[in-house]
Amino acid sequence: MPSPTVLIEITRGDLVESTHAGHAVVCDAGGAIVAAWGDPDAVIYPRSSCKMMQALPLMESGAADAAGLTPEHLALACASHEGAPIHVDRVRAWLAARGLGDGDLLCGTEVSRDTQTKLAMIRAHEGPCQVHNNCSGKHAGFLTLTQHLKAGPDYVALDHPVQKAVRASFEEVTGMVSPGYGIDGCSAPNFATTVTGLAHAMAQFAGARQGQGVRQDAMARLTQAMIAHPDLVAGDGRACTELMQAMNGAAAIKTGAEAVFVAILPERQLGVAVKITDGGTRGAEAAIAAILVHLGVLDINHPATRKRLNAPLLNRAGREVGAIRAAPGFP
Amino acid sequence: MPSPTVLIEITRGDLVESTHAGHAVVCDAGGAIVAAWGDPDAVIYPRSSCKMMQALPLMESGAADAAGLTPEHLALACASHEGAPIHVDRVRAWLAARGLGDGDLLCGTEVSRDTQTKLAMIRAHEGPCQVHNNCSGKHAGFLTLTQHLKAGPDYVALDHPVQKAVRASFEEVTGMVSPGYGIDGCSAPNFATTVTGLAHAMAQFAGARQGQGVRQDAMARLTQAMIAHPDLVAGDGRACTELMQAMNGAAAIKTGAEAVFVAILPERQLGVAVKITDGGTRGAEAAIAAILVHLGVLDINHPATRKRLNAPLLNRAGREVGAIRAAPGFP
Repeated sequence: MPSPTVLIEITRGDLVESTHAGHAVVCDAGGAIVAAWGDPDAVIYPRSSCKMMQALPLMESGAADAAGLTPEHLALACASHEGAPIHVDRVRAWLAARGLGDGDLLCGTEVSRDTQTKLAMIRAHEGPCQVHNNCSGKHAGFLTLTQHLKAGPDYVALDHPVQKAVRASFEEVTGMVSPGYGIDGCSAPNFATTVTGLAHAMAQFAGARQGQGVRQDAMARLTQAMIAHPDLVAGDGRACTELMQAMNGAAAIKTGAEAVFVAILPERQLGVAVKITDGGTRGAEAAIAAILVHLGVLDINHPATRKRLNAPLLNRAGREVGAIRAAPGFP
Repeated sequence: MPSPTVLIEITRGDLVESTHAGHAVVCDAGGAIVAAWGDPDAVIYPRSSCKMMQALPLMESGAADAAGLTPEHLALACASHEGAPIHVDRVRAWLAARGLGDGDLLCGTEVSRDTQTKLAMIRAHEGPCQVHNNCSGKHAGFLTLTQHLKAGPDYVALDHPVQKAVRASFEEVTGMVSPGYGIDGCSAPNFATTVTGLAHAMAQFAGARQGQGVRQDAMARLTQAMIAHPDLVAGDGRACTELMQAMNGAAAIKTGAEAVFVAILPERQLGVAVKITDGGTRGAEAAIAAILVHLGVLDINHPATRKRLNAPLLNRAGREVGAIRAAPGFP
């Protein structure tokens, strides 16, 4: 089995202080591997990078249209948002429109990652709600599908109709049977696949066009919703949001916990999947940026790129002490 | 060159989701390698794990005794404290006793890592001072030595008498010329060494006994100060504090940024150094715990151990979803 490859280096002074190794695959819409680093067959959990796959049954069942969901809702269903008012208010309104509330969610609470919201809540001695959880949009989608299917309230159970539909879609678009599952941070099942399986799925999204059947309609609409609303997919200052804005619609990208990152390039009809073996987010952000630059859709000198790749590391006094950069030969 | 070895695994469901590879060396006081994993010759920055080495000139110059420093001061000089009142108040008093204040420090400000202090400061709209910086005790030591040497105020400059003395001591106890340096988070120079060099230095501390000359006096007093005051070396809930308390004096241990961890075992006369290649703190904490269990000084079932090794991972709803454990064959 090929080993993970060192993709990213952290320097300090004249030395490399730390490195991030991992696996990455670029697939075309025909399913062929265009480029690969590390072990393309490594089994990984995609974590939140697969939210657009988890939203497929919401679309394909007709639940999204029956509930009148807009591209903003679809972007939130695919989001790991930071719990800023633009996210929380929209999820609350979505739930209210379905006759639901915070207590119907099963994602658990999470402190808002939006600095102003977090500080204001601390000063007001307020604890976080479930809508602040970065996955609350995905869970609002699960609840919308649950209502449409007239299914029971435990929508994160492995044998619930929602999760059975998610698994079926996931295996179809990854092109393989999932070798196992884990429970995600938000309590939903997260199905494992290979790095190639994940890149293959993203390439299916990239190649999808509306008017080519239910599956392609769903994939194209979700991709377009993410591209249209990068601020809803993550939030102010976040990698997904800033890099999507920097690419002006050339790609939808999505992070996942434990250092997964994916990209959907509709114009190029390419899908990308990255997993940093050690779970380090800074490594995944730098690696996906390096690949997007390599593929010609991201400017290496854009501030959003340089915040994550070839970025100066500053110490507590603001002094430049090192950098984060691609390892020699990558990509 | 040997590759880093996978030392720690993070599981989710039935699969290994992420891994931490690295290097580790155990040395005896005679300088022999007792055990090693990964590449013992890997060059690393010890970062804050070498604070006891950076305090040697403070001791050996006579500055510490001239200033009447107690074991509490010495523990703070070796600390990466969390900026709780027990740390901040003592550093403030130390500086005041020397006729110095927050503005004489060059470490930069840092938000307190003590939850209650942090929340109280946010609610009071207070920004952090330099004394809240985890390195403020080390810097108080640098300032005390600076006064003793009647040297200039820029005590973090590479050519300042304090840093020249630090480098000389560092190279003597690591047993090698430092191959380079970087600027640390607190703006002090951080001298590179190998994993073996760092373990060798810790073994020198472990073997040191009072009454055997200036160097051994200094090393023994610093080690004893750390062991006597584990709460000052880090703080409530921190790995250094909790694991030292769990070992009841059998070891002094110290973390460093980018996943370095060292241990000094005076009774066993052993020194340990760990570097996780990717800089992931959870990997370094689990790896040093595994080695300390292996060496017979830490109970594998102690709550402080099980918080970091064989620890259940809980999701946002408090559900157990995985674990952190030693990789097969380690240690």
